[in-house]
Amino acid sequence: MATTAKAALLERFERVILEPRRLDYRVQFPGPTGTNAVEAALKLARKVTGRTLVVSFTNGYHGMTLGSLAATGNRGKRSGAGQPLSGTVALPYDGYLGPSVDTLQLIERLLEDPSSGLDLPAAFLVETVQAEGGVRVASTSWLRGLERLARRHGALLIVDDIQVGCGRTGTFFSFEEAGLRPDLVCLSKSISGYGLPMALVLLRPELDLWKPGEHNGTFRGNNLAFLAATEALSFWETDELQRQVLAHGALIAERLAALARCLPSAEVRGRGMIQGLVCGELAQPISRAAFERGLIIETAGPKDEVLKVLPPLTIGKAELCEGLDLLEDAVQAVGRG
Amino acid sequence: MATTAKAALLERFERVILEPRRLDYRVQFPGPTGTNAVEAALKLARKVTGRTLVVSFTNGYHGMTLGSLAATGNRGKRSGAGQPLSGTVALPYDGYLGPSVDTLQLIERLLEDPSSGLDLPAAFLVETVQAEGGVRVASTSWLRGLERLARRHGALLIVDDIQVGCGRTGTFFSFEEAGLRPDLVCLSKSISGYGLPMALVLLRPELDLWKPGEHNGTFRGNNLAFLAATEALSFWETDELQRQVLAHGALIAERLAALARCLPSAEVRGRGMIQGLVCGELAQPISRAAFERGLIIETAGPKDEVLKVLPPLTIGKAELCEGLDLLEDAVQAVGRG
Amino acid sequence: MATTAKAALLERFERVILEPRRLDYRVQFPGPTGTNAVEAALKLARKVTGRTLVVSFTNGYHGMTLGSLAATGNRGKRSGAGQPLSGTVALPYDGYLGPSVDTLQLIERLLEDPSSGLDLPAAFLVETVQAEGGVRVASTSWLRGLERLARRHGALLIVDDIQVGCGRTGTFFSFEEAGLRPDLVCLSKSISGYGLPMALVLLRPELDLWKPGEHNGTFRGNNLAFLAATEALSFWETDELQRQVLAHGALIAERLAALARCLPSAEVRGRGMIQGLVCGELAQPISRAAFERGLIIETAGPKDEVLKVLPPLTIGKAELCEGLDLLEDAVQAVGRG
Amino acid sequence: MATTAKAALLERFERVILEPRRLDYRVQFPGPTGTNAVEAALKLARKVTGRTLVVSFTNGYHGMTLGSLAATGNRGKRSGAGQPLSGTVALPYDGYLGPSVDTLQLIERLLEDPSSGLDLPAAFLVETVQAEGGVRVASTSWLRGLERLARRHGALLIVDDIQVGCGRTGTFFSFEEAGLRPDLVCLSKSISGYGLPMALVLLRPELDLWKPGEHNGTFRGNNLAFLAATEALSFWETDELQRQVLAHGALIAERLAALARCLPSAEVRGRGMIQGLVCGELAQPISRAAFERGLIIETAGPKDEVLKVLPPLTIGKAELCEGLDLLEDAVQAVGRG
Repeated sequence: MATTAKAALLERFERVILEPRRLDYRVQFPGPTGTNAVEAALKLARKVTGRTLVVSFTNGYHGMTLGSLAATGNRGKRSGAGQPLSGTVALPYDGYLGPSVDTLQLIERLLEDPSSGLDLPAAFLVETVQAEGGVRVASTSWLRGLERLARRHGALLIVDDIQVGCGRTGTFFSFEEAGLRPDLVCLSKSISGYGLPMALVLLRPELDLWKPGEHNGTFRGNNLAFLAATEALSFWETDELQRQVLAHGALIAERLAALARCLPSAEVRGRGMIQGLVCGELAQPISRAAFERGLIIETAGPKDEVLKVLPPLTIGKAELCEGLDLLEDAVQAVGRG
Repeated sequence: MATTAKAALLERFERVILEPRRLDYRVQFPGPTGTNAVEAALKLARKVTGRTLVVSFTNGYHGMTLGSLAATGNRGKRSGAGQPLSGTVALPYDGYLGPSVDTLQLIERLLEDPSSGLDLPAAFLVETVQAEGGVRVASTSWLRGLERLARRHGALLIVDDIQVGCGRTGTFFSFEEAGLRPDLVCLSKSISGYGLPMALVLLRPELDLWKPGEHNGTFRGNNLAFLAATEALSFWETDELQRQVLAHGALIAERLAALARCLPSAEVRGRGMIQGLVCGELAQPISRAAFERGLIIETAGPKDEVLKVLPPLTIGKAELCEGLDLLEDAVQAVGRG
Repeated sequence: MATTAKAALLERFERVILEPRRLDYRVQFPGPTGTNAVEAALKLARKVTGRTLVVSFTNGYHGMTLGSLAATGNRGKRSGAGQPLSGTVALPYDGYLGPSVDTLQLIERLLEDPSSGLDLPAAFLVETVQAEGGVRVASTSWLRGLERLARRHGALLIVDDIQVGCGRTGTFFSFEEAGLRPDLVCLSKSISGYGLPMALVLLRPELDLWKPGEHNGTFRGNNLAFLAATEALSFWETDELQRQVLAHGALIAERLAALARCLPSAEVRGRGMIQGLVCGELAQPISRAAFERGLIIETAGPKDEVLKVLPPLTIGKAELCEGLDLLEDAVQAVGRG
Repeated sequence: MATTAKAALLERFERVILEPRRLDYRVQFPGPTGTNAVEAALKLARKVTGRTLVVSFTNGYHGMTLGSLAATGNRGKRSGAGQPLSGTVALPYDGYLGPSVDTLQLIERLLEDPSSGLDLPAAFLVETVQAEGGVRVASTSWLRGLERLARRHGALLIVDDIQVGCGRTGTFFSFEEAGLRPDLVCLSKSISGYGLPMALVLLRPELDLWKPGEHNGTFRGNNLAFLAATEALSFWETDELQRQVLAHGALIAERLAALARCLPSAEVRGRGMIQGLVCGELAQPISRAAFERGLIIETAGPKDEVLKVLPPLTIGKAELCEGLDLLEDAVQAVGRG
């Protein structure tokens, strides 16, 4: 009993996104916001594998409802649950223990040792770029290694592409560069293009073990959002948006690198149009100074130590430069202060 | 940094809904759909009381994310979690054990016995009418007794008014007739009037112990939904809608009663414009027969044994009668078949 | 690699206890005290059924380690866990809701309603007489009904016979009168006869799905306790002990009934040589007065409102009468005070 | 209402063990076996700190009841629970990631990062030598660092000295060499000297927040075990046993080192009279060959790859040498085979 709007969206998603990338997924509408997608993916992963534990990562962010909150790293948000969170364990993300430690080796050691205390997991839940966690970028080799590890131990790979999917890193999915084939993918935010709440879970067809009504909800299908999302997908009929995101991303990275050189022990990291200026205690004053100048730029990271540059994907070059000028101005004002 | 649309909605909600009812609540936007509201309410109740257990009720329905699913009665939906659900216990709703057993007495016994095995709860989470559960209506005396019990044992009262609030029972809140003063109220669905995802949690001001960012999310504030919701609230500037809901509700109940008399051991129950025709194994064939005639009427209850009549609140009388005629037709067709 | 002492015990247990009662059980030594037996039984029940939830009962007492504590009713003891207890739910024991409510019907209603919020349980864990819970006696019809209910819903029946097994009620197992065939039986305390720590789990052979080493521990096999237990079992070669327990039990009940008539709203309940004098706030002063007179008599029940008379099974009649005289003296002293 | 036997034991424990070591502990009898002691310590740590999570370590072994099993590393034993284990996380023990990674730094990183996903723990539960885990020895510097880390983050330090306390490493407590002052210490096994089940928890006096009856049990106090334990403590009136354990330990280590040189990539590790011969797949055949020769020698480690040499502390030199000769014989037989 699907509506025409829903059918149109599914058709375009198949034709414009999945087919050209030779991806074969079913599309589930799990509820209108990102956390609904994560919850649905976690439920399905546990149900399919018959295992309970989900491995998430240090500094990961996946949502505020009980299941996704358990996979979120932030202690302040976790304590909001008012009860112990269970069913998850956070292992070190790529680079978490410094450049000399390969965290995948640690994870592998724990998985292969039958007395490590780590139960075999139902899934790994990962962001290829940890946005809220401070714009931390996983390397393609680490991501590929994680996928291999998951396969070898019978665990599913879930990519939470809610913040950095839908073109943010240049390609539609953030994991295209690494060539991953995740078992489940969570999308939301930009998917509906114009700010209408919508979220998707993509699932490999053989994982679709939902019984009728086993995961339902009111606002899973919202016709207005379907229309907006269908329209937004038209950007992906050509490669123009992708080229523009990469060009604008390079521009942002370059400008931030110049700013970083003016600040003590600052650093730039990111992919495409998500770029972070890691600048410690200066991040919050710079964010405020930018706001005073008419620019909204949020901080991220466990101690709000990163300025997260995340402009609309469709921004024009002139407007982008204006924003970066305002940011530069704010940085200089704080530097002087 | 609230938008104008949000401010306008809050102002109107205060003026049109809360003030005339002498209710004093803060409004939280917990995410765009009902389950987000329930999750936020459960988190807050646990955090405020320092207790973990939440009492929900047999046949209750509160959502599909991990926290609200734990408070949902349906075993099929529960098993979708792929892991044991915890932090909740379902106690018998009003009438669950037949007319001769007062389920409140049972609940009171369990609370007052320090060795009952029931830990003191953070909250009671209740629907005044269990819609998905089969249009089960709690009596005003039971609801008042539940509120007293909660107060006496230091537990909060959370009313999940997602399906039967916003005028469905006649009054804006379904608990007005009983004169309850819930600590937390969950609203969604009709609150935004035109199908745009939105949800609210109302909380007594002294319960607002959220720290900044402790419960956040992407689509908590959606300007289009704010506008729609503000417009929808204009219906409540006069008592016209309320009177119409009661009149139409009476009409529906009357027509259903007539149908019930034609069916073996059928029964009608409901309040305002949510009415259920309890008719056992005939419910699903009647629903299908209605659909063939152009009428969507869902089944509810643990065994899909109830036809749930839930028309739009703003439906006109002619259209309502047409719908009821179609239903009658469907009932007769199934009766003959 | 069993020792001779262990083999001798197993042989005698088989010959003297199991065979004459036509019971077919494997014997597991789960660790030296009652709670180890309960933990092992719960683990096995969950493993065998693939279900998590265990139904325990109001006022039940099963032990202080995390798994058995979750099945214990007392809130004070439960709060000692320092964390929420999960995996169990306490339902009303026989008589808990007064003489007019059949609690089995309530349990059946919850099991048969697929939306009751009660997940299908792995097991029912029950004491036929709740000793710590205040010497509450389940009727044989209730126990039989519970066994039928368990079978019908694929749940195991675990009898915790730690306090009232080994002859306390007259028969060796407390469930012989009701003719139950529990899937698992927990024994400890009197089983080793002379106060040496020992505990047993009896399991239906087809349930023995333990893998090697899956449940082990240091003091599972203790040769001294094996010897003592073997010796103690010689009491069961004839029916003399059983007849004596019943005779002494009747004597105790009679004497307590006489005392009850002197106290306001007092009551006697029990089976065999576990008898309780329910006397409210007088129980503790009477216990103290008895202690001053050289008699140890503990209180039981959620509010310590029951004097629990629990003499050694092998006590002589003269000594028993002396004890009862001391108790009578204590009751009269408190009555006068 | 303590017995004379209990009082005598407590007096001697205070005079012979605690006072000379300037340790100030209360003694709790939590039930007769090791897992009861661990359960009691975990409950108290959670209750005192108001936190839930307990950090255990890879390859740790703490018991089979639900609370201590959650802190045990072995997946086979964990799966015996039949339900997900919660409230614990296993972090890497000293040396777990090879000689170049300091696992304390990893643990510190997780604790100090407020978004690591690791909640602040109630306690660290550690064995100074992991016996079942394969005779893994933590260095004194690592143990001291762990104690500092615990203090700095408000967590308790619990030493599980059940297998390697009571003189096994030479000193009475295994942590004396590192100079630790644990908040809680679990003792069992050798404490009662002659194989009678007994266990102790030592707790810093200010942690004794138990309410009456909050953690009780049947076989907590067993007079025969009290007598045996009191007698066993007489060994500690002089330093003779300690000197002998160290001498015998050195002898065992030397003989094992000689055996290791005959085996491919074998290694010896241990302290005092717990020594392990790490020899991979040869461990089990050697164990069997030893058994055939009249010597019981168990294997340990996640893959049973370690022969665990654990003779009685009071063994004479001649008997010890005889045992080692038998072992040598078994090693050679397997080597030839």
